[in-house]
Amino acid sequence: MDAATLTRTAEDEIGALIDQWREATLARDIDRVMACYAPDVLAFDAIGALQFKGRDAYRQHWQACFSQMQGAMTFEISELQITTSQDLAVFHYIARCGGTCDGEEKSGWMRVTGCCRRTRGPWRIVHEHFSSPFDPMTGQVLNVGPA
Amino acid sequence: MDAATLTRTAEDEIGALIDQWREATLARDIDRVMACYAPDVLAFDAIGALQFKGRDAYRQHWQACFSQMQGAMTFEISELQITTSQDLAVFHYIARCGGTCDGEEKSGWMRVTGCCRRTRGPWRIVHEHFSSPFDPMTGQVLNVGPA
Repeated sequence: MDAATLTRTAEDEIGALIDQWREATLARDIDRVMACYAPDVLAFDAIGALQFKGRDAYRQHWQACFSQMQGAMTFEISELQITTSQDLAVFHYIARCGGTCDGEEKSGWMRVTGCCRRTRGPWRIVHEHFSSPFDPMTGQVLNVGPA
Repeated sequence: MDAATLTRTAEDEIGALIDQWREATLARDIDRVMACYAPDVLAFDAIGALQFKGRDAYRQHWQACFSQMQGAMTFEISELQITTSQDLAVFHYIARCGGTCDGEEKSGWMRVTGCCRRTRGPWRIVHEHFSSPFDPMTGQVLNVGPA
């Protein structure tokens, strides 16, 4: 394959990994979610702690999150951009997500950045960063969509 | 140069770019800060808006931030990791930052992820993501350090 074809193939593979992650998340399938991550993943999640080191620690956090959410969840990805170079890939997107947490309907906009590597096997997420912006005056999360 | 030397050189260059960015930020030198970014940078900043598209929009946001901060600022980087592949690089770290905003001393922990590219010139930041985690029950930012 030529370089352009290799790049398109890698971008398609990262897109498929993101699709797999999203479907597994909405299905609350913890094993399929965790299969997207490298064992040494370093995660900056939007809630709960500054960082999570390694798939085992991150799995515990995910299980706690799933246990707090009831009913159907939504997770709509937009403005996805993927950049690849050999065995390194970066993606980012914004997402509108919603669900029911402790009986209360919640929804909001998130920003997501991920980094993937491929080492003698399929692509895996080695780093990810989820967040919402906040108001520095009040310390309160801003529930704002794209301008 | 062999592949290992090229990788070390790229990592050193990204480290130098992060140093330049940090020094320029602490000096409130908007031109030197902006010189670190590609013209089409897509930024997820910790405060104010979901995203900033392009260096001009991001510069306006930076100027507004600088105008709200008085006195000395601190920005201590730890746990920096850099990964490079050819002309693509990813870095992430946690940072303890502080300053005086509207007469009030503020300090907190942030997570930072960045993506850099090199196209016929020096490395530039094409994407970055700053955030602090929040409590999903209250919507309030969590001021927590590394575990």
